[in-house]
Amino acid sequence: MAPKDPKSNDAKFSVTTGPIPGSKKIYVKSDSNASVRVAMRQIDMEDGCGEPALKVYDCSGPYTDQETKTDIYVGLKPFRKEWIDARADVEPYDGRQIKPEDNGLKENEVSTVAQFNLGERKPLRASGGAVSQLAYAKRGIITPEMEYVAIRENEGRKAALNKERDGEDFGASVPDFVTAEFVRSEIARGRAVMPTNINHPESEPMIIGRNFLTKINANIGNSAITSSVGEEVDKMVWSIRWGADTVMDLSTGTDIHDIREWLIRNSPVPIGTVPIYQALEKVNGIAEDLTWEVFRDTLIEQAEQGVDYWTIHAGVRLAHIPLTANRTTGIVSRGGSILAKWCLTYHKENFLYTHFAEICDICAQYDVALSLGDGLRPGSIADANDEAQFAELDTLGELQKIAFEKDVQTFIEGPGHVPMHKIKENMERQLEACGEAPFYTLGPLVTDIAPGYDHITSAIGAAMIGWYGCAMLCYVTPKEHLGLPGRDDVKVGVITYKLAAHAADLAKGHPGAAIRDDAMSRARFDFRWRDQFHIGLDPETALKYHDETLPAEGAKKAHFCSMCGPKFCSMKISHEVKEVAQKGMNEMSEKFRKNGGEIYHKTDAAE
Amino acid sequence: MAPKDPKSNDAKFSVTTGPIPGSKKIYVKSDSNASVRVAMRQIDMEDGCGEPALKVYDCSGPYTDQETKTDIYVGLKPFRKEWIDARADVEPYDGRQIKPEDNGLKENEVSTVAQFNLGERKPLRASGGAVSQLAYAKRGIITPEMEYVAIRENEGRKAALNKERDGEDFGASVPDFVTAEFVRSEIARGRAVMPTNINHPESEPMIIGRNFLTKINANIGNSAITSSVGEEVDKMVWSIRWGADTVMDLSTGTDIHDIREWLIRNSPVPIGTVPIYQALEKVNGIAEDLTWEVFRDTLIEQAEQGVDYWTIHAGVRLAHIPLTANRTTGIVSRGGSILAKWCLTYHKENFLYTHFAEICDICAQYDVALSLGDGLRPGSIADANDEAQFAELDTLGELQKIAFEKDVQTFIEGPGHVPMHKIKENMERQLEACGEAPFYTLGPLVTDIAPGYDHITSAIGAAMIGWYGCAMLCYVTPKEHLGLPGRDDVKVGVITYKLAAHAADLAKGHPGAAIRDDAMSRARFDFRWRDQFHIGLDPETALKYHDETLPAEGAKKAHFCSMCGPKFCSMKISHEVKEVAQKGMNEMSEKFRKNGGEIYHKTDAAE
Repeated sequence: MAPKDPKSNDAKFSVTTGPIPGSKKIYVKSDSNASVRVAMRQIDMEDGCGEPALKVYDCSGPYTDQETKTDIYVGLKPFRKEWIDARADVEPYDGRQIKPEDNGLKENEVSTVAQFNLGERKPLRASGGAVSQLAYAKRGIITPEMEYVAIRENEGRKAALNKERDGEDFGASVPDFVTAEFVRSEIARGRAVMPTNINHPESEPMIIGRNFLTKINANIGNSAITSSVGEEVDKMVWSIRWGADTVMDLSTGTDIHDIREWLIRNSPVPIGTVPIYQALEKVNGIAEDLTWEVFRDTLIEQAEQGVDYWTIHAGVRLAHIPLTANRTTGIVSRGGSILAKWCLTYHKENFLYTHFAEICDICAQYDVALSLGDGLRPGSIADANDEAQFAELDTLGELQKIAFEKDVQTFIEGPGHVPMHKIKENMERQLEACGEAPFYTLGPLVTDIAPGYDHITSAIGAAMIGWYGCAMLCYVTPKEHLGLPGRDDVKVGVITYKLAAHAADLAKGHPGAAIRDDAMSRARFDFRWRDQFHIGLDPETALKYHDETLPAEGAKKAHFCSMCGPKFCSMKISHEVKEVAQKGMNEMSEKFRKNGGEIYHKTDAAE
Repeated sequence: MAPKDPKSNDAKFSVTTGPIPGSKKIYVKSDSNASVRVAMRQIDMEDGCGEPALKVYDCSGPYTDQETKTDIYVGLKPFRKEWIDARADVEPYDGRQIKPEDNGLKENEVSTVAQFNLGERKPLRASGGAVSQLAYAKRGIITPEMEYVAIRENEGRKAALNKERDGEDFGASVPDFVTAEFVRSEIARGRAVMPTNINHPESEPMIIGRNFLTKINANIGNSAITSSVGEEVDKMVWSIRWGADTVMDLSTGTDIHDIREWLIRNSPVPIGTVPIYQALEKVNGIAEDLTWEVFRDTLIEQAEQGVDYWTIHAGVRLAHIPLTANRTTGIVSRGGSILAKWCLTYHKENFLYTHFAEICDICAQYDVALSLGDGLRPGSIADANDEAQFAELDTLGELQKIAFEKDVQTFIEGPGHVPMHKIKENMERQLEACGEAPFYTLGPLVTDIAPGYDHITSAIGAAMIGWYGCAMLCYVTPKEHLGLPGRDDVKVGVITYKLAAHAADLAKGHPGAAIRDDAMSRARFDFRWRDQFHIGLDPETALKYHDETLPAEGAKKAHFCSMCGPKFCSMKISHEVKEVAQKGMNEMSEKFRKNGGEIYHKTDAAE
C-alpha cells in the first residue's frame, strides 16, 4: 500500500481510496442552491435493528466516495470555480515564473521530482477590492461557500433539536441550528474563518470558529532528512480519511514548491503553510539573509498555488525577545526562532511586523487566511503563560484588528506546553486580546515527561481548551519531540485529536454532538458489534482489537466479549434486569424504596 | 520473552527483570528507623552535563534492582513481617482449607496449574482488636509503614521547597513536606488509605489520598476465554515495571485461587480483587445461587492469602435498581449487575449491604481495605451523573462512615463514562457524600465514540478528575470495550495513566511534581537525547521512535532531530539568541522596548 517515490515523471504513486468500513458517501443538497452538494458519510446499522443510519461529518473528499474515481495525476475537480467565477471579481493572469530556488535548487539544477501537470491553468487574483469571504460577509452577501458550511455543520442536528441542551459553553454562542446567515454573521464579526483561497477551488468549504464544531489540523511535510513527494501526498489523503479538517504542509527540505502543488491540487481540505520555511530555504537556511522581498515573493508564489492559510510570526517583536532569554527552553517555534535571530542580528523590528499591512493586502487579493503564529509559545511546562508568551499574544491582538480592517480572515495560534491549571487563562486572554477571533492551538501538552506519548499528553490539553472555546486543535503525533511522523503516526494523531475535539463539543453542549455517542452506546447495549466498530472513529482498529481474542464471525453477534466471557457479561445481565424491572418489579421496588428501604440499613448494616 | 504457560509443576515461567534503561535502584533509609529502606529509582544524567541525578517514585519492586535476584517460585522477601510481628497483635492459625471450587473445579477434579509452594507459611489474623493502619493512626501510633510512605512521597521534594507553589488544588491540603505524622493524621481522619493486608508482608507501603501523589491501578486477570497463570504473573510484574501503584486481579475463569497466590507472593504492590467474581464462580456462574455464606467464605479465603483491598458493591441497593431501567446502557459494572440480578430475583436487599458490618469485621482482622464499588456507574455519556449513580454514591457515603467506625480503611470507586463538563460534579459530590475518603475512578471516558483509543478518551477524564482531587486512577487500556488486554496493552495503559496522574499532580501544584518536567526540558534544550529518553516515562519507546529516522549513535548528541533537520532547529537558534541576548542585546532591547517599540507599529503596520 505504501506509495512509490515519484523520483521521475514515470513513477506512479497512490493513495488510499474507498469507503471506510461500514460507511458510504452521501451528498446533501441545498434547497436553495442546486450547486451546493455537501459531502457526508453515512454509517448504516445492522439490518433489522431498527436503528437509523448515522450521518457524520466527513473531511475525506472524493477519495472515500464509492462511486468516484480519483486520479492523483489529474487532481480533484475544481467544483468551487463556478462560484468564484460567478462573483466576477477575479481575473486570471500569467502569474509569477517558477524559479529553481522555489524547490531549493541552484540556478541551473533541474528538479528530479515529478511535476504536477497544470495544463492551461492560470492563477486568479482580485480584479478590484478584497475577494475574501470576510469582505462578502461584511457586505451582507451569503456565498455558496457559506451555504455549504451551514449544511455541513448541521449534520445530525435536526434530530437533536428537541433535546435539552446539556453542557457548559463558557460564553460561546453555539446556535441550535446553523443557518447560512449565521455563518455569514460569524465571519463578518471575525469570530469565524473559512480558509478558501480562490486558487484552491478543489476545496470543500469548512469553517473554524468556536460556535461551530471543533476542528483539527494535521501537519505533514518533508524535512531535509527524510520523506518524499509521494509520501506526503499519501499522508495528506490518509490524514483527511481519518478526519483532518485542514492540513498544514510544513515541508522544509527541497522540492517544496512541487510537493505543495501536488498537495493542493489533490486536497479537498484547506492547506496551510508557514511561508518563512520556504523563504529560508531560498536563502540557503541563513536567517540573516532573509529579506522582505524574498518573503513577499514567496507569499505570491504560494497564493497563486492556492494555499488557504499562512502562519505568519509577525508577533515576534524585537522587544519581546529578551523576555525569552531566561526561559528553560527558549524559543521552540521554528518560525519564531528564525525571526528572533534575524531581529537580533540587525537589531531591527521583525520585518513581518513592519510589513504586516502589505501581507494583509496580498491575503485579501486571494482570500488567504492568516493564522497569526505564536513564535514565542512555551516549549515546556516551566515556560507556560510567561511574560514573553502573553506579550506576543497582545501583539497578535493588535495585528488581528489590522487584518480584520483589511478584510483578511484571521485566527490566532496558541501553545504549546501548558499544565492543566493554566489552560483556561490562555483561552480567556486570547478571547480578550483578539476580539474573539478563532483560537488554534497545538495541544497543549499538559506535562513534558512522556515522549512517545505526546499525542496523549497534548490531547488532554486539547480537549480542555476545545471545551473552553478553542476553535481548532493542531494534532500532535506519538513522534513529537522524537522524529518525523510516518503514516501510522499520522493516523493515531488524527484519531486522537478527533476524539479530543468531539469531547470538547460534547462538553460545550454542542447540539447533536451526543448523537454519535448515543448510537454507540445503544449498539453496545444491543451487542451489535459490527455497528460498534463502524460508529467508532477507527473501525479498522476496533475490529482488529476485538478479533485478537474472538476472531470467529459468530462473536460479532455474541452477547459477550473476551473481557468477561459469556457468564459474566454485565450488559447481558442488565437486559435481564431491565426485563424484570419492566414486568412490574419497577413498581414493587418503588414501593419498597418509599416504605421499607431504611429498615435493612438500620437492622443489618448500620450497627 | 513471553512466559510459558505453567500447566504443570515443571513448567517454567518468567518475568521481565533488570533496571529500566538509564536507571538504577537505590534505597533511601529512614533516619529514625533502620528497618525502613525505601526503594526509589535514580536516573543518572549524561557525564559532565552538570545536571543532578533525578530520583523518581518506583513501584517496580526488587525486579528492577540491579543487585537483587528474584525468583517467582520463591516469591518476594516478606520484609514487612518484622514490623507486623513487632506489634504483637496478630496470631498465626491454620486457616481455611483450600477447596476445589476455589479454583473453579468440581469435587474430585485436581488443578492442572502449578501450585505456589507456601511451605510452612500460616495465615495471620488479629489476636485482639483491629490491626488496620487506621486503628493505629486513630490511636496516634506512627507505624513503620507510615514512615516508609512519608519518605516515599517526599522523593524530590526537598529540592522544591524553596519554589513558590504553582497550581490550583481545589481545597486539597497537600503539604510542602510529608512527615510520618502527616501520613498518620491523614489516615486517622479517613482521608488516606494504605492497603496493607498483614498476610501480604511482601508489599512496599504506599498511600492513596488526595493530599499525596496521584496513584494509578492496573487491572489484570484471566477470563473464561483466555490467558493463563504465567501470563498474569508476567503482566503484574510488567505493569508495576512501568508504574502501576496497585494491581487488581479481576480473574473470572478457573484457577482463580492459584493465580492469586502467585500474584500476591510475587507482588511488591497492593493487590485488589472483586470477591464477587470468585464467589460467582463457586456457584457456577448463577447469580441467583449466591449466598452470604459463600461470599463470606471467599472473603476469608482471600484475606488469608493477603489481598490488600476489595471492591465490594454494597451500594447496589434494591431500591436503586429501577433507576437504571431506562438507562441507555443499564448496569455496566459486572459486580453491580450480578447483585442487581440477585436483588431482583428474590426481591431482597443486596446481601452485601445487609451484611456490611460483618464484612468490615473481617477487614479489620486482616487490614483489608475496602474499595466501595460503584455498581451503578454510568456506562455511557448518556447515563452520566444520573439519579442511579448519585443515589448509590450517597449509599457509599453511609457505608464509608460505618467502615470508618470499624477501623476499616475505605475508599470509594467512581465512574466510568462522563463528559468533561460533568466530571467536577462527580468529585465534589464524592467529597461531600463520603467525608473526603479517597476517590478511585475508572477514567472517566469523556466520549463513547473511540473504541480502540479508550485509554486516551479516559486519560482526558482521569487527568481532570485527578486534578480536581481524585486519589487513584484505574487505568483503561486500548482494548477497553473490545477484548482482554495483552502485555503491550497493559504497558500502554499504565504509561497513559502515569502521565495523566502526573499532569494532575502538576496542576494541583504538588511540590516537586515539576522537577521531572524541568529536568526533561533542560535535557531538550541541551540536546541531551539519551537523558530525554531516560527521564521520560517510557525510555524504550522514546528511543525506538527517535531511531526510526535517526538511528546513528552520533544523532544522540546531535543538535537537531529529524523533525526539522539541521538547518531549522529552533532550539539551536534559541541558543544563539540566548547568547546574543546575554552579550548585552538584552539591555539594548529593553531600551528599545521602552522608547521606540511603538514607532514601527505606527509607521508600518497599523495604517
